Amino acid sequence: MDIRKHLSQVDIFTGLSLQQLDEVSRIVSDREYKKGELVFSEGDDGIGFYIIISGRVKVYKVSPDGKEQIMHIFGPGQPFAEVPVFEGSRYPAYAEVMDNSRLFFFPKKDFIKLIHDNPSLAMNMLASLSQRLKQFSNLIESLSLKEVPGRLASYLLYLSDKNGSIDEFELDIAKSQLASFLGTIPETLSRIFTKMTNKELVRINGPQIVILDRTGLEDLAEGESKL
Amino acid sequence: MDIRKHLSQVDIFTGLSLQQLDEVSRIVSDREYKKGELVFSEGDDGIGFYIIISGRVKVYKVSPDGKEQIMHIFGPGQPFAEVPVFEGSRYPAYAEVMDNSRLFFFPKKDFIKLIHDNPSLAMNMLASLSQRLKQFSNLIESLSLKEVPGRLASYLLYLSDKNGSIDEFELDIAKSQLASFLGTIPETLSRIFTKMTNKELVRINGPQIVILDRTGLEDLAEGESKL
Repeated sequence: MDIRKHLSQVDIFTGLSLQQLDEVSRIVSDREYKKGELVFSEGDDGIGFYIIISGRVKVYKVSPDGKEQIMHIFGPGQPFAEVPVFEGSRYPAYAEVMDNSRLFFFPKKDFIKLIHDNPSLAMNMLASLSQRLKQFSNLIESLSLKEVPGRLASYLLYLSDKNGSIDEFELDIAKSQLASFLGTIPETLSRIFTKMTNKELVRINGPQIVILDRTGLEDLAEGESKL
Repeated sequence: MDIRKHLSQVDIFTGLSLQQLDEVSRIVSDREYKKGELVFSEGDDGIGFYIIISGRVKVYKVSPDGKEQIMHIFGPGQPFAEVPVFEGSRYPAYAEVMDNSRLFFFPKKDFIKLIHDNPSLAMNMLASLSQRLKQFSNLIESLSLKEVPGRLASYLLYLSDKNGSIDEFELDIAKSQLASFLGTIPETLSRIFTKMTNKELVRINGPQIVILDRTGLEDLAEGESKL
């Protein structure tokens, strides 16, 4: 798979044109790591950030008594260390690969030069992040105001938006987790899915969702109709 | 209140240094609008974006049969139209002030020049947005995996983070909405708050929250302790 394809799936780069993706891909260095290898240590200079292409990376701190405290585990498609690098600070924790992994490394120096030479690239990255942040805020607002069917409708529309407003996509968490996230139990969630299917709002096949009637789903999300 | 102070409270600018805030504040134009005045129309060139200092703005589309469809209402401290402006596209909707309002306008041209002359400003803005996006992702992940007390602990830690890791802050939504957001009812939420208070994890006074024992709250959020 070419580098551009990988980049276009990461939030900060989703809004870039093909030409801009090309420019970014030129500064990428493609790196292989063996299981257990350290990517960086706490306090190291933040010389660049990473995107995981395959494998997993754990980011952890070490407590005064030597205990490892895992802060996050990142998987394919996820960036890490971009916040300290963008901020111009040191790495705030250790990063270690948990499997044999392939990472894209973005050297900070080259990245700054890219933005200097091409401010519209920065503008597009800011657009992607602002967009995602607004989607998240809307989601949180929806979740706090609606009945469960409306929450589910909001969540499905959010996933569709997140994937570029497409009508066919996969749930990003297990149905049991989704139930919990929406404040209900799996049996209720499953009943709501059945009703949505019967009303031909969506078609469901395992984790695969197809939106059949977007307007109907929006009405449900906005509380203008009931299931 | 000075312009920098207003800017520092907006997500995209939170990570900027005082000097960088100064640079941004130089391109701001401070504008007064009368209730009902149109800020821009759908299809207008995206010549700049806005932050609301006082008042409210409704963003809406007009359907083919002339009906107004409100997409969002923004209030003080919120930016609007930044996504189309960053993307370099036209305004996708109408914006109209709902009260007499004061807005900061950021001309796109000046903003691009600022980023070109000072790429670290763009880096810091990217850092703020990435940071907020990660906080949101963590929150959503937490909410889907935990029992209600753990969810509440996660939410309180999220609010603390969002406000700059401070120990004293206000809830950003009403308690009834918070209950619904956490997938429970107000009575249960109130019982959990009482238990948290008795265990001296937090002190609560209306919407005001004071974190007394951050480690205890983190253990609860991570499922390492129960209430």
